[in-house]
Amino acid sequence: MHLGFSDAARGGSGIESALDKASSASTALERALMHRLLNLFGPPAVRVRLWDGTEIVPSPREPVGTINIDGRATLYRLIARQDVAFGDEFSAGRLRVDGDLVKVLRELYTPRPLSPKDSLFFSTLYKVMTRRPRPNNLVGSRENIHHHYDLGNEFYRMWLDAEMQYTCAYYAQPDFSLEQAQQAKMDHVCRKLQLKPGDHVVEAGCGWGSLARHMVKYYGARVRAYNISKEQVRYATERAAREGLGEQVEYVEDDYRNISGEYDVFVSVGMLEHVGKHNYAALGGVVERCLRDDGRALIHSIGRNQPRLMSAWIEKRIFPGAYPPTLGEMMHILEPYDFSVLDVENLRLHYARTLEHWLQRYDRSRERVREMFDDHFMRAWQLYLAGSIAAFLTGSLQLFQVVFARGRDNSVPWTRAHLYNAGEATASE
Amino acid sequence: MHLGFSDAARGGSGIESALDKASSASTALERALMHRLLNLFGPPAVRVRLWDGTEIVPSPREPVGTINIDGRATLYRLIARQDVAFGDEFSAGRLRVDGDLVKVLRELYTPRPLSPKDSLFFSTLYKVMTRRPRPNNLVGSRENIHHHYDLGNEFYRMWLDAEMQYTCAYYAQPDFSLEQAQQAKMDHVCRKLQLKPGDHVVEAGCGWGSLARHMVKYYGARVRAYNISKEQVRYATERAAREGLGEQVEYVEDDYRNISGEYDVFVSVGMLEHVGKHNYAALGGVVERCLRDDGRALIHSIGRNQPRLMSAWIEKRIFPGAYPPTLGEMMHILEPYDFSVLDVENLRLHYARTLEHWLQRYDRSRERVREMFDDHFMRAWQLYLAGSIAAFLTGSLQLFQVVFARGRDNSVPWTRAHLYNAGEATASE
Repeated sequence: MHLGFSDAARGGSGIESALDKASSASTALERALMHRLLNLFGPPAVRVRLWDGTEIVPSPREPVGTINIDGRATLYRLIARQDVAFGDEFSAGRLRVDGDLVKVLRELYTPRPLSPKDSLFFSTLYKVMTRRPRPNNLVGSRENIHHHYDLGNEFYRMWLDAEMQYTCAYYAQPDFSLEQAQQAKMDHVCRKLQLKPGDHVVEAGCGWGSLARHMVKYYGARVRAYNISKEQVRYATERAAREGLGEQVEYVEDDYRNISGEYDVFVSVGMLEHVGKHNYAALGGVVERCLRDDGRALIHSIGRNQPRLMSAWIEKRIFPGAYPPTLGEMMHILEPYDFSVLDVENLRLHYARTLEHWLQRYDRSRERVREMFDDHFMRAWQLYLAGSIAAFLTGSLQLFQVVFARGRDNSVPWTRAHLYNAGEATASE
Repeated sequence: MHLGFSDAARGGSGIESALDKASSASTALERALMHRLLNLFGPPAVRVRLWDGTEIVPSPREPVGTINIDGRATLYRLIARQDVAFGDEFSAGRLRVDGDLVKVLRELYTPRPLSPKDSLFFSTLYKVMTRRPRPNNLVGSRENIHHHYDLGNEFYRMWLDAEMQYTCAYYAQPDFSLEQAQQAKMDHVCRKLQLKPGDHVVEAGCGWGSLARHMVKYYGARVRAYNISKEQVRYATERAAREGLGEQVEYVEDDYRNISGEYDVFVSVGMLEHVGKHNYAALGGVVERCLRDDGRALIHSIGRNQPRLMSAWIEKRIFPGAYPPTLGEMMHILEPYDFSVLDVENLRLHYARTLEHWLQRYDRSRERVREMFDDHFMRAWQLYLAGSIAAFLTGSLQLFQVVFARGRDNSVPWTRAHLYNAGEATASE
């Protein structure tokens, strides 16, 4: 039972199955409801094919693909739970997409939130039609964070780069390979931090430890890296030892709030999404406590243009507790203290490209994923990766890198030209 | 009566003058009070010389200069109104600084705010000592904004660059002259905006019109520039006509809220400080209304690391209504709409350098300033420029350039390398 997919998410027993068995022709009302549902999304340039072969084309634009709805129960689930049903029905194989999945999802990925009025209309309708309460809400489990990162290194190795980086890459040149772009990302971060030999770095949330190893190997830094994922810490520690870096890098299985010591550099790449808004001032307090007077800091996080919750399906099925902040919300980390923001860069389109590379590799490994897990899991991750591409391409998600230092530190870089100076030697060149 | 310096600000009549006439030796209590006052600031590494020759050295560090307090009334004014008395007494010539003014101000420019307790102690003390109410608060006048910018082009020409730019320059090379750095600033802004021939630009708050002319001359843009300063608009219009740019640039004497039309580019350099926090969403609404779907926008403003009012003296005597926002507060402009922040750069140290260049030129023109205005005015502006250097050097003030676009615009630059690519032709190269 990976990722907390309960029986309810997988569908099956109950009144809805009974509905499906009576797979009669769609009614005029059902077709009208489908139209109304699609209109909430733009309407999108997609074709919808119902279980009886009826086709609905809500937009005059050429459809980019076809959404097949295999039974009437799926239609009612979409009506009742627009927020999670698409993902659940796709994962269960009862909603199938012909054509380019990312293109179809881009059509659906409108930042326009469902109005309370529409939401009430559809959920009331569902109750009347089925004379049943909605499917149970699924129990959100904090353990899923561990499930996510501890799904097994073998799984992630199939589609991540060789250094196992599960964060946005930096395509300094648009035609970079995934491996080149992940190396370039680490160099970009190290340059932003003006990393130099002997620097003592603390990393909050280190994944499989690639950035820490990179900082040691190519910049001569010493790194202490924190992570609460047992499997990742074990992998990182073993790999560092194998590469002879065990003296310079230490992976600590502990929470970022327990970071101790004083450091020249604080860095956190892809952890903030899991920190929770209510802990932002505490995270800033950690940097306040551990950064030297002339220290440099960088936080890299998925973000938003406007405050909004994570996609409900992703939050429920993939990343429980995840929240992508706006830049204004990120300032709640820093503004309680005298930190000075030096540089913010938005790498949204680079994350879309990264995810495209991941999805290509994932698609090539789908049979193996199916063997390791099952159909449901395989489709859920396909949707997660494709949906994330759509989210970054439509501007629903952003990727912010924020560089900061203490307010009184005048040793900060004079310009940002050093980030782009081809004359400087780096690992990726 | 320039800049709203009332008789109260200039001091003179009343009980305090009577106090001064009794210029007896300082008492132990007065010396103790001066000590306590200085301790609020660190204590600073300065020497204070009282009217009777008594010297107070509050810090064990070597003093960077001497603050001369010419009479007991000045001491009591400092005690009662720490926020504005230093500036007023300096401008009146009753508080004189020997040594490097900027260095002395850096010692005093602590971001630590006065606690309510300290403030109460000193103001109560003042009332008891003088048995008089505090000097009247000065009437803050909105007209002062116009007074500031309409002091006369002759005055600003003495110490600004040839293009009359009264905003932070960009020292792409640290040894740039003021003229080079102001040209580089305009190029930096134009590159951030990816300005190209034929682009239609709207500028909110255009000063003497230099950026608009630059965009026309070197980038082939058409510009409509708004400003509420009559004298600046007249100067800008005449100069554009003289340079043969009258067809491509239009200066409009009107408020930014009245901007109409559709544009490829929105730019505002050094206006936000005067907009007021309560108008931020309205400013964002102007951009929302006037920016094309693939348009680019830039806001350049003095800022803060933490929310705090402008120096009371500067706010009262130099820039009524000025407020430097934090980056988080600046997001109140953008987050009500679907804008995407692409790039933030902090040019704090460049503003300190700009002000150093302005102060050098100002100091060479002091005699002429005295002739045009008077001693009081001349000293007030000297303090304003020197104090601003100190504020940027100590991190009390920041300078943010924020680049943004619409949330769904995927034509944004792939990286920021084009800002630093020496191969590209620009005006400053």
